[in-house]
Amino acid sequence: MKQGLKKVLISTLAITLLAGSAGVLAQQAPKPENLIKWRQSAFQLVAWNTGRIKASVEGQYNKDEVQRAANTIAAIANSGLGGLFAAGTEQGKGWHDTSAKPELFKDGKHFAELNASFGKEATELAAVAGGGDVAAIKAQFGKLQRTCKSCHDDFKSKD
Amino acid sequence: MKQGLKKVLISTLAITLLAGSAGVLAQQAPKPENLIKWRQSAFQLVAWNTGRIKASVEGQYNKDEVQRAANTIAAIANSGLGGLFAAGTEQGKGWHDTSAKPELFKDGKHFAELNASFGKEATELAAVAGGGDVAAIKAQFGKLQRTCKSCHDDFKSKD
Repeated sequence: MKQGLKKVLISTLAITLLAGSAGVLAQQAPKPENLIKWRQSAFQLVAWNTGRIKASVEGQYNKDEVQRAANTIAAIANSGLGGLFAAGTEQGKGWHDTSAKPELFKDGKHFAELNASFGKEATELAAVAGGGDVAAIKAQFGKLQRTCKSCHDDFKSKD
Repeated sequence: MKQGLKKVLISTLAITLLAGSAGVLAQQAPKPENLIKWRQSAFQLVAWNTGRIKASVEGQYNKDEVQRAANTIAAIANSGLGGLFAAGTEQGKGWHDTSAKPELFKDGKHFAELNASFGKEATELAAVAGGGDVAAIKAQFGKLQRTCKSCHDDFKSKD
């Protein structure tokens, strides 16, 4: 019986270790070049959707178009972009050489604050878009764009 | 008085035309290479977030991580991706040569159906993610991945 219990314990341990390894494998850290590619993709999508909002509020307003674009920016801004600037991605090439300044990786607290402001103003824009008040959308869109500029000023190299 | 009214009408017409031109300028169609770059960026972000969900449900489950990733995929899937496959983008280079098959531009109805399924299953995944039931998330994640595969099978060239 003691022997039986030992076998059960060993089997349990083996299964636990196997499951643990599978977990580690599944969560293997992505390659730095992928992280850089994904963050470059994220900001390109923000640019696409920013352009759509600008075109709509300055030209022929389309409520659905603005809502879809604002939702997309909000989801990206709140997606956890900080994780795409992990250690090891200070330099390197995704779609192109990273435009992140070295300062970004040295002042994580300030970057996190700017990232949080981006998320906050983007969430607010998605909410305001639902009201369909173009003046209010323009005002909130301006606030959002200022968060883009703040972060670019501090942490993005000029091309 | 008649002369005065004429002046007012002419001024109004001039302002209307100017405003119209500004609208047209603001809504100038993006360049094909930008549309291709944005769609390639969109699918890269879907890949990033798909990977995060997979790592979380197969490894150490993190409810917030899955929710953020599912929200991002849902917003992108419902962002109006069809617009990024506009006429004039059948061939060309964004980040790289387009992987879209010519068939995509010939069967807009089928593409629109697949795009709608992608949006529907992604929206459902974002909803299911809120419940925190890993088995339910896995099941819905499988449904979402099948919509990716259907569209790739029909409309994406093998690299």
